[in-house]
Amino acid sequence: MEVYLDCLPCILRQVLESSRMSTDNKELHDKIMVEALSKLRHYRSFQNSPELCRDISSIVKIKTGQTDPYYQIKQRDMRTALRLYPKLRSFVDAQQDRLHWALKVAATGNVLDSAVDIGFDVEKALDAEVSKPFSICDTQLLEQQLKTAKSLLVIGDNAGETVFDSILLEQLAHLDLTYAVRSAPIINDATLEEAQASGIDRYAKIITSGCDAPGTLLGECNKKFLNHFYDADIVISKGQGNYETLLDCDRDVFFLLKAKCPVLSTLLSVDLNDYVFKFYQCAQA
Amino acid sequence: MEVYLDCLPCILRQVLESSRMSTDNKELHDKIMVEALSKLRHYRSFQNSPELCRDISSIVKIKTGQTDPYYQIKQRDMRTALRLYPKLRSFVDAQQDRLHWALKVAATGNVLDSAVDIGFDVEKALDAEVSKPFSICDTQLLEQQLKTAKSLLVIGDNAGETVFDSILLEQLAHLDLTYAVRSAPIINDATLEEAQASGIDRYAKIITSGCDAPGTLLGECNKKFLNHFYDADIVISKGQGNYETLLDCDRDVFFLLKAKCPVLSTLLSVDLNDYVFKFYQCAQA
Repeated sequence: MEVYLDCLPCILRQVLESSRMSTDNKELHDKIMVEALSKLRHYRSFQNSPELCRDISSIVKIKTGQTDPYYQIKQRDMRTALRLYPKLRSFVDAQQDRLHWALKVAATGNVLDSAVDIGFDVEKALDAEVSKPFSICDTQLLEQQLKTAKSLLVIGDNAGETVFDSILLEQLAHLDLTYAVRSAPIINDATLEEAQASGIDRYAKIITSGCDAPGTLLGECNKKFLNHFYDADIVISKGQGNYETLLDCDRDVFFLLKAKCPVLSTLLSVDLNDYVFKFYQCAQA
Repeated sequence: MEVYLDCLPCILRQVLESSRMSTDNKELHDKIMVEALSKLRHYRSFQNSPELCRDISSIVKIKTGQTDPYYQIKQRDMRTALRLYPKLRSFVDAQQDRLHWALKVAATGNVLDSAVDIGFDVEKALDAEVSKPFSICDTQLLEQQLKTAKSLLVIGDNAGETVFDSILLEQLAHLDLTYAVRSAPIINDATLEEAQASGIDRYAKIITSGCDAPGTLLGECNKKFLNHFYDADIVISKGQGNYETLLDCDRDVFFLLKAKCPVLSTLLSVDLNDYVFKFYQCAQA
């Protein structure tokens, strides 16, 4: 999907936040903002917002030498998620339709997004968020495909959300599971470190996508990931960044996310902050 | 006060909103955004955000020929405020300390700010907003000065807020009152048209400041305004834009506003969305 104009102020806000996390040097903040504004002018030469966001984020890395500005935030979000894990797992275990609620818990993990709202209090909002129904709910289609499926790939999104995803993976543990993360730190997205610390490896093989944008740019992904992506019987893509980069891709995908910005909610024809589990059927498939 | 980096994404968001209000032509939206990004890079050459915002807004005016993009929004906010007026006036009339509550009502009018949040439902929030106390409350200092004062100037802010201000002016009607507005439409700020439609002229002489930025850049103000500004015994300045441009000016000013963004709340050492009635005493005065 193209770069939406609404993304530009949002990316600019995010690069400022990231600059301040990386250094207290105000002269550097100024230099980063001027360069970010220069680069943002060329937004039309980017395929989508995650690609633009990656390039803008690299300015912070180059100017400050800080390769992982959100490290502390990711650690905080991981601690929060791990604290919530026993409660969420008991909740899913107590349900009759465990798969549906495990999907809902994994979608709820998508609120752990410090790139969108660093101050969001997930513990306070948890019960309301988990019980909020999906606006688009293709669970039945997934159940149908699970009858014959042998392998499933989940493409992860944010740090902390990974812990919520492990609850979904547990419900799918009879399959050959793979869980993909970004190849390098980018904003608050999960990397190998957070996936491992989330216990994902109890249920799934963890791989990197080869992409260091906050999404999945297939043209940049490594061979191993692409093999899993095209060979897996089912792919579940988590979060907005993966949606923006995989929408209209050349295979079927289930998208599991919370529509946290007006661009996404409009595209999906849902209300802002709605939960979505949507099956995208590729025309070529 | 200088241009704060946090203002840049906010101005960019606002120019996009304003572009869409002015035209449906997406090519023009693109052209406006590219030019806005180019101009924003030079933010350090602007004295403050209202000055920068004026220059960025002029791009929309030049590219689309639309000189008053917020006209419909201002009309909507005026209708809302006029509908609320009888309730607000009765509320103030019923108070023992009418001046204090008239100040609070006028400050509450500052929530009518479609440049900050176009979807804010003021009617729904009104009771809670009016009853929320000031975080900084220099009413006693005003009362003291009112004992000897003969003239008072109010510098208005947004359309609709002007109706709330008329309730404050009524309480000060024994003074020689002047009410100043911007000289030309800029975002949702009040001009002569809205001040007159708010019934301000029942209590005060309405003048234009000579400035068409969303604030009061004294270097650009007309002679008449400057005479009132320096000669009035008391000046009450409404809203953030006037605060940003008059902070550290060369006369005493009472600032009456709601701190609607983190930059302002940090500067004022209050919480976000707090109400403030703060006396600024000029060192030279």
